[in-house]
Amino acid sequence: MRNIKLILAYDGTEFHGFQTQPNLRTVQGVLQQTVEDVVGHSVSIIGSGRTDAGVHARGQVVNFATSSRIPIEKWPIVLNTKLPDDVVVQHAELVPDDWHARFCAIGKEYRYRIDRSPYTDVFWRKYSHHVPYPLRLEPMREAAGHLVGRHDFTSFCAANTPVVDKVRHLHVVDLIEEGSLLTIVCRGEGFLYNMVRIIAGTLLDVGRGKLSPDQIPDILASCDRTQAGVTAPAKGLTMWKVFYAESSGLIP
Amino acid sequence: MRNIKLILAYDGTEFHGFQTQPNLRTVQGVLQQTVEDVVGHSVSIIGSGRTDAGVHARGQVVNFATSSRIPIEKWPIVLNTKLPDDVVVQHAELVPDDWHARFCAIGKEYRYRIDRSPYTDVFWRKYSHHVPYPLRLEPMREAAGHLVGRHDFTSFCAANTPVVDKVRHLHVVDLIEEGSLLTIVCRGEGFLYNMVRIIAGTLLDVGRGKLSPDQIPDILASCDRTQAGVTAPAKGLTMWKVFYAESSGLIP
Repeated sequence: MRNIKLILAYDGTEFHGFQTQPNLRTVQGVLQQTVEDVVGHSVSIIGSGRTDAGVHARGQVVNFATSSRIPIEKWPIVLNTKLPDDVVVQHAELVPDDWHARFCAIGKEYRYRIDRSPYTDVFWRKYSHHVPYPLRLEPMREAAGHLVGRHDFTSFCAANTPVVDKVRHLHVVDLIEEGSLLTIVCRGEGFLYNMVRIIAGTLLDVGRGKLSPDQIPDILASCDRTQAGVTAPAKGLTMWKVFYAESSGLIP
Repeated sequence: MRNIKLILAYDGTEFHGFQTQPNLRTVQGVLQQTVEDVVGHSVSIIGSGRTDAGVHARGQVVNFATSSRIPIEKWPIVLNTKLPDDVVVQHAELVPDDWHARFCAIGKEYRYRIDRSPYTDVFWRKYSHHVPYPLRLEPMREAAGHLVGRHDFTSFCAANTPVVDKVRHLHVVDLIEEGSLLTIVCRGEGFLYNMVRIIAGTLLDVGRGKLSPDQIPDILASCDRTQAGVTAPAKGLTMWKVFYAESSGLIP
């Protein structure tokens, strides 16, 4: 058996999230079916982590074991020919037998995209959250700075999450402007459920003056989900990159 | 009656082009229906020009006459609330009674977007033409330079076009690189049917070495459509801007 790692990009709009669910179109389900059609045996697709319905990916990582002898460099084209056009294999490589897309991951980068046009940018409507009111970036950057580091992110995690340890280490929380698009970059060792979308919702509250950057440390300290901003819409979020080695750029 | 000018952006993917056609979903048809629902009387939507099925617009311009007293600054939000999400009004203004979106236009800018990623960029798949083979930009720029100016563009016009005078003046044919995207910018006083898509197909032939830039003057001189490259796919093309006054930036 060979262990194959794939890097996937997908448009999450028409998927019910990454993880297989009965009778629903999911990325894992579509990919598994396609791989099984190609290799002629059942496979188990392991993802680096789930993405919710409507969330996109530029660099989701998966692996699976197969007896197929298809040369590794042919995998992207073989799969892309059969996959629907909203999921694209960007890269394939052979990895050691014990390599695991989730357990070997040491960090992730997510990006949350905001469209600041007065009226929706039609070409970004599915990949961004439209925010037509003015945003002040300096307070947003200051607030972002308070989130960097090792913190208990209970206030930035969906309230009903079963995870006990909600301490996470964020290495980067950055804002990138490209024309009317504003992108929040979050890079860290791990993320809680809805964490980036709650960070985005909270930074938007800062940008519109509803929260002050100085309140962020108090919000973190409160360990109370109701103190942070709303969960920003799924369509603005993209799983950008998964990191697998310290040298890979996780830590700036 | 008041004469209202709108600037429209649309995703052409799900439209059978701009112009109204019986029983088909078109931009003009959808907009006319929406405006009529708002104003309560029939209107005639005049466009700056047609776009084909699958072609997008960032700055299509239309006008129509109405007795409605809706304040001009409210028009975008009133229409956007009722329009489907693949067409967005970006701007509205009152114009003189004799102002006409087509007759008053003095030039247009189109952009043709090429995705040079090894595998399709999933987020640009509907708005670009995927070209995975290597492109040499210097010869493409040289070829583009030969197209600038006043020429008979018969070789760059769909063969079955009834237009007699095929002399047009291109002010700009430029290439812009943004990561793996390559955009061909064409700005001029007027365009023939399929002209930008044939220019794109021809510049791609130059980029892959199938044509030399020196052949462009001969292709123009031949006045023979078969001498130029193929018509590149509709989805890569966007009507970018319509110019209405010399001072508007048409001429660099």
